Amino acid sequence: MNVMTTIYNFAAGPATMPDSVINQIKEDLPSYANSGMSVMEISHRSALFDGIIDDAKQDLRDLLGIPDNYQVLFFQGGCTLQFTAAPLNLANNYHRIALLDSGHWADRARDEAQRVGTKVDVLASTKADHYTKLPVLKSLTQNTYDYLHITTNNTIEGTAYSELPDTGATELVGDMSSNFLGQQYDMKKFGLVMAGAQKNLGIAGLTIVIVRNDLIGKVKNLPSMIDYDLFAKKNSMFNTPPVFAIYTAGLVLKWLKEQGGVSEMERRNRQKSGLLYDFLDNSQLFTAPVEKAARSLTNVPFITGQPELDTKLIAQAADVGLLNIKGHRSVGGMRASLYNAMPYAGVEKLVDFLNKFEKNNR
Amino acid sequence: MNVMTTIYNFAAGPATMPDSVINQIKEDLPSYANSGMSVMEISHRSALFDGIIDDAKQDLRDLLGIPDNYQVLFFQGGCTLQFTAAPLNLANNYHRIALLDSGHWADRARDEAQRVGTKVDVLASTKADHYTKLPVLKSLTQNTYDYLHITTNNTIEGTAYSELPDTGATELVGDMSSNFLGQQYDMKKFGLVMAGAQKNLGIAGLTIVIVRNDLIGKVKNLPSMIDYDLFAKKNSMFNTPPVFAIYTAGLVLKWLKEQGGVSEMERRNRQKSGLLYDFLDNSQLFTAPVEKAARSLTNVPFITGQPELDTKLIAQAADVGLLNIKGHRSVGGMRASLYNAMPYAGVEKLVDFLNKFEKNNR
Repeated sequence: MNVMTTIYNFAAGPATMPDSVINQIKEDLPSYANSGMSVMEISHRSALFDGIIDDAKQDLRDLLGIPDNYQVLFFQGGCTLQFTAAPLNLANNYHRIALLDSGHWADRARDEAQRVGTKVDVLASTKADHYTKLPVLKSLTQNTYDYLHITTNNTIEGTAYSELPDTGATELVGDMSSNFLGQQYDMKKFGLVMAGAQKNLGIAGLTIVIVRNDLIGKVKNLPSMIDYDLFAKKNSMFNTPPVFAIYTAGLVLKWLKEQGGVSEMERRNRQKSGLLYDFLDNSQLFTAPVEKAARSLTNVPFITGQPELDTKLIAQAADVGLLNIKGHRSVGGMRASLYNAMPYAGVEKLVDFLNKFEKNNR
Repeated sequence: MNVMTTIYNFAAGPATMPDSVINQIKEDLPSYANSGMSVMEISHRSALFDGIIDDAKQDLRDLLGIPDNYQVLFFQGGCTLQFTAAPLNLANNYHRIALLDSGHWADRARDEAQRVGTKVDVLASTKADHYTKLPVLKSLTQNTYDYLHITTNNTIEGTAYSELPDTGATELVGDMSSNFLGQQYDMKKFGLVMAGAQKNLGIAGLTIVIVRNDLIGKVKNLPSMIDYDLFAKKNSMFNTPPVFAIYTAGLVLKWLKEQGGVSEMERRNRQKSGLLYDFLDNSQLFTAPVEKAARSLTNVPFITGQPELDTKLIAQAADVGLLNIKGHRSVGGMRASLYNAMPYAGVEKLVDFLNKFEKNNR
């Protein structure tokens, strides 16, 4: 591969980051803010880091419109650890939660909740449709669940909720990892939102939890590293936080503000994914299997139906700098992830390539 | 502060890293190994990352002499999460562990084990001595514990075990965070070793667990993010690992090999800490409170006994580029952390400064 080729990285996460953020990280080495130390070497109990974490929290509040009665917490361990933490902190009344089975990550959430003794009722599933649709909540009039868990965007299957289910009096918990900050939701509709940073918020190793105050502090003697109330009281620094990942997130958040915030990101993501979906829907070779109403703005799976051709395509794409379009191993085919940092030009180049590939492989 | 002053960062962690590692990280931006992507953006399911994680594991094995029947695992969440994980995975027979109370982090380990229902017997404590000595294990002939937990180096109190306690048939679990790779221990004497990366292995957000094969896989239905057996089977990639922190650790490990390995690091750490302890023991102003036999090679607390003078000293030290020598808030006074990446010249400069300060403040 010619290293002078412009690279577009369509990986599902860890994923492409804004060029200006990468450049800033490079510029901040070896000395951050004239300190003589890099961010990797500064104490989390320092004024330098206080500035970093406080800015990141405030910028998240501004960008997402997080109400004052919600905490913004920084954890480690990905949403997989939050699939343990959320039921242990929140499922303290009925010890039972509801779940919409929209794919791989919803199923993981079910499994982890059950491992810690929480009962899980799957109220709807689209497994029989190979998750090409979203499960629909019929009604939830009986409030016998501590919360309903949904995956707002399904990274592997390429579906996303554009409207949130009406849960009535039941709290809504959203795993928002793969469209966090890329699609607008009303935070007030959630009791808790969780999101890994490695899609739209920088590097792997940081997980955001946004949770309403009245839901936490009800369970005593939790392991400290999953205790929401403790993390709220300690400003997410009960022990050493992932300093560099929080700094990186902070840079991404400042970039997001400069770019126009989440509404502008959603507009761009609709434009980018629209370009690709339009091409796929008009193609004779490619198919986008997800039904239109359920389509994700950030993760676009597509297939030829011929695995050997898929393999050839993925290799040829890499040769021209279109990287990581291989589909998840559980689904096969291709997948293009179009997170906030993916420019429109990258999607244009991808569509142009797919178009030529189709002509050459009729 | 003049930014041209040479900076020495004595922080207890996150801590100073080797200059050559920081330079390599900078050089690897924005494109790692001619990939067109930075390490922050590469998939953990890529050949590029496979090389990084496999090298890091092998280099750890080489440097520490880890026997083949031990796993090397990468976790998130610090040792605080391992204080939960170790009892849940290992304390499955007697549901009771023994512990030597050598200070803050031993007490944390006790607390977290008890939170998950494990009984903890503190067999010896030096709390009454303000932890200026190490607790001595009388004898452990009765094997009624799943393991004995020790903190090999006490970051806050400045003590370290140079000889490991004889636990007989009882397994030994060591929290080695602050002298991991800085002092030699026989890994075969441990059933499990845990260590946070942010002292001697790079950046915060990565925790190493080294555990003997026969101790894991005995408990079913653990939360996945603390399941040693699952992490062993998934090469520490059940979900997205902290890619950049593992890459950084890998660079530090290669630097350690070039420098001569752990025996050479211990020699240098003895030399560095010896220089400082000798000065302190001969000073009329300063006192090193820890008894000689128990002194840490990597964390050196010292006091004047006059809090106002301490404050003045810490500020004056920072003015000449000797950063972060303030003691932990629970202890007060000063502390110099002399991890592997701290050069001898830094300690010379510190001793020279302390010597002048003493002459000016008799």
